[in-house]
Amino acid sequence: MIRIGIYGYGNLGRGIENAIGQNPDMTLTAVFTRRDPASLTLHTPNVPVCRADAVLEYIGKIDVMILCGGSATDLPTQTPMLARHFCVVDSFDTHANIPAHFARVDEAAKESGHTALISAGWDPGMFSLNRLYAAAVLPEGRDYTFWGKGVSQGHSDAIRRIDGVLDAKQYTVPVERALEAVRSGAEPELTTREKHTRECFVVAEEGADLARIEREIKEMPNYFADYDTTVNFISMEELRRDHSGIPHGGFVIRTGKTGADREHSHVIEYRLQLDSNPEFTASVILSFARAVARFHSEGRVGCKTVFDVPPAYLSAKSYEELISSML
Amino acid sequence: MIRIGIYGYGNLGRGIENAIGQNPDMTLTAVFTRRDPASLTLHTPNVPVCRADAVLEYIGKIDVMILCGGSATDLPTQTPMLARHFCVVDSFDTHANIPAHFARVDEAAKESGHTALISAGWDPGMFSLNRLYAAAVLPEGRDYTFWGKGVSQGHSDAIRRIDGVLDAKQYTVPVERALEAVRSGAEPELTTREKHTRECFVVAEEGADLARIEREIKEMPNYFADYDTTVNFISMEELRRDHSGIPHGGFVIRTGKTGADREHSHVIEYRLQLDSNPEFTASVILSFARAVARFHSEGRVGCKTVFDVPPAYLSAKSYEELISSML
Repeated sequence: MIRIGIYGYGNLGRGIENAIGQNPDMTLTAVFTRRDPASLTLHTPNVPVCRADAVLEYIGKIDVMILCGGSATDLPTQTPMLARHFCVVDSFDTHANIPAHFARVDEAAKESGHTALISAGWDPGMFSLNRLYAAAVLPEGRDYTFWGKGVSQGHSDAIRRIDGVLDAKQYTVPVERALEAVRSGAEPELTTREKHTRECFVVAEEGADLARIEREIKEMPNYFADYDTTVNFISMEELRRDHSGIPHGGFVIRTGKTGADREHSHVIEYRLQLDSNPEFTASVILSFARAVARFHSEGRVGCKTVFDVPPAYLSAKSYEELISSML
Repeated sequence: MIRIGIYGYGNLGRGIENAIGQNPDMTLTAVFTRRDPASLTLHTPNVPVCRADAVLEYIGKIDVMILCGGSATDLPTQTPMLARHFCVVDSFDTHANIPAHFARVDEAAKESGHTALISAGWDPGMFSLNRLYAAAVLPEGRDYTFWGKGVSQGHSDAIRRIDGVLDAKQYTVPVERALEAVRSGAEPELTTREKHTRECFVVAEEGADLARIEREIKEMPNYFADYDTTVNFISMEELRRDHSGIPHGGFVIRTGKTGADREHSHVIEYRLQLDSNPEFTASVILSFARAVARFHSEGRVGCKTVFDVPPAYLSAKSYEELISSML
């Protein structure tokens, strides 16, 4: 049994807890939180909830610690810190900062003889894998990543900060016409505006100036100004009833050419449609936690990514079973 | 530079030759054929074409030998034989016989200190990888593989053996309604007939009994009897003009559930649309040939499959470049 610790008990942490129940070779040993442990109720019976600062008491009792904090401020310090004492997996998703994060975690893990794996999830994660496989197979071609339809937490938060807004949910939506252009193999140049639209569902305060709120959303730099944005004002009841989920997904597509005269065109497409972004991310993380446990048992320490993991290491099945049933 | 040998120069061998030109870290050293070498003209200048039985003269001059023969009679003997003298990659695709083939190749490669990789291509190959990743990530769910639209060589050959048939091409076509049912997450039970249809384009001898030919096709056990089959009689000119390509592709879809009450549904879909089945297969094989060369340089010998290969090993890019540009 792989003994799992959960460090941070938000949406992702709860997703990890649920997903452990779907992996018979794993068991949940403890949950660590910065909140008052007494304020949390787990789904799993008889699992201790501990204060985050008591985590070192679990050295030797946990095989893989899953970090469930955010990439902005939590993981840059937490992952290296915990990699000094545990094997760890995180879902660090600030693409531009991955090399620096990798270096910090690698140093901590190597010095202490642990195995760490960063940036597990779907993007980075499964999407990254598909970008790599497709580019290796079709060296002359072009990659496209589309996100959605799905909820962007960052964009929803940005709307909520506008004066007069009580709550909001923002969906990123891939443009079907752009997807079709990519699948045609024409290798189109697509602007930000051509790839995605943004749909906002906003609950405003009574008497708020809706025209101003809509304008402030649509003109917000970085978040909305470069997109075709739709703003729908709805009631709090409607928001709760129709927009309480956290769906997401998207497409990784590579088109490329082969042949003596590059006369043949190929399309490789990977698509995710996820009812729950954090639960799917958690499911990906756990499969890589299995690989981390195996790497560590083989003495392979330091920081790893999804690019280092032989696919067979992700599965609870034996190698013989895999080649006879899945190859 | 990775020095590549091509053993067998049919559609797949020519695909390998073309794909080497798209991989700057590879070079074609020699082509081996059972035909008269003088009868072959390569696209690549200054590459020797050798008799297959002279292959041992190239020991030490080739880093990875690509076997381009068929799975029925060629590869079961050729891959173990050549694995005693070279690192090898094949595209053995008789799924049921993979474990036995693996065992024979593994023994030959281990005894002689070589690295072999079998069953590279798209199915087995990229489809297998996607089945494994998706099953590891969503342990509670269901897999579906659909093929097409594409040419089935075996079914085309079966039609050609019918009395009165001059030539024929058969397309395997996935049923859109079945795909939609799978994507819905309903985990439908699908019969053979519900998943694929078969479209046949047949050139008959002048005066042949078309009704009899059509009946013989549609009632042919294993090949057509379990499918809804359409038979179109066309002229030789039409066949050459409209059906000379070897397109193929298909879908690997897994749907699964997560959440405390399994209340969230997810769809993972991988799709290939290939203008040329052998050229895409060749492109996949070459990326795994790169991994085989790396495994061998690390002293990792014996038989491997796509399940053993860390994705980073498939790419000519450095690890640093991969994590900064693709993760």
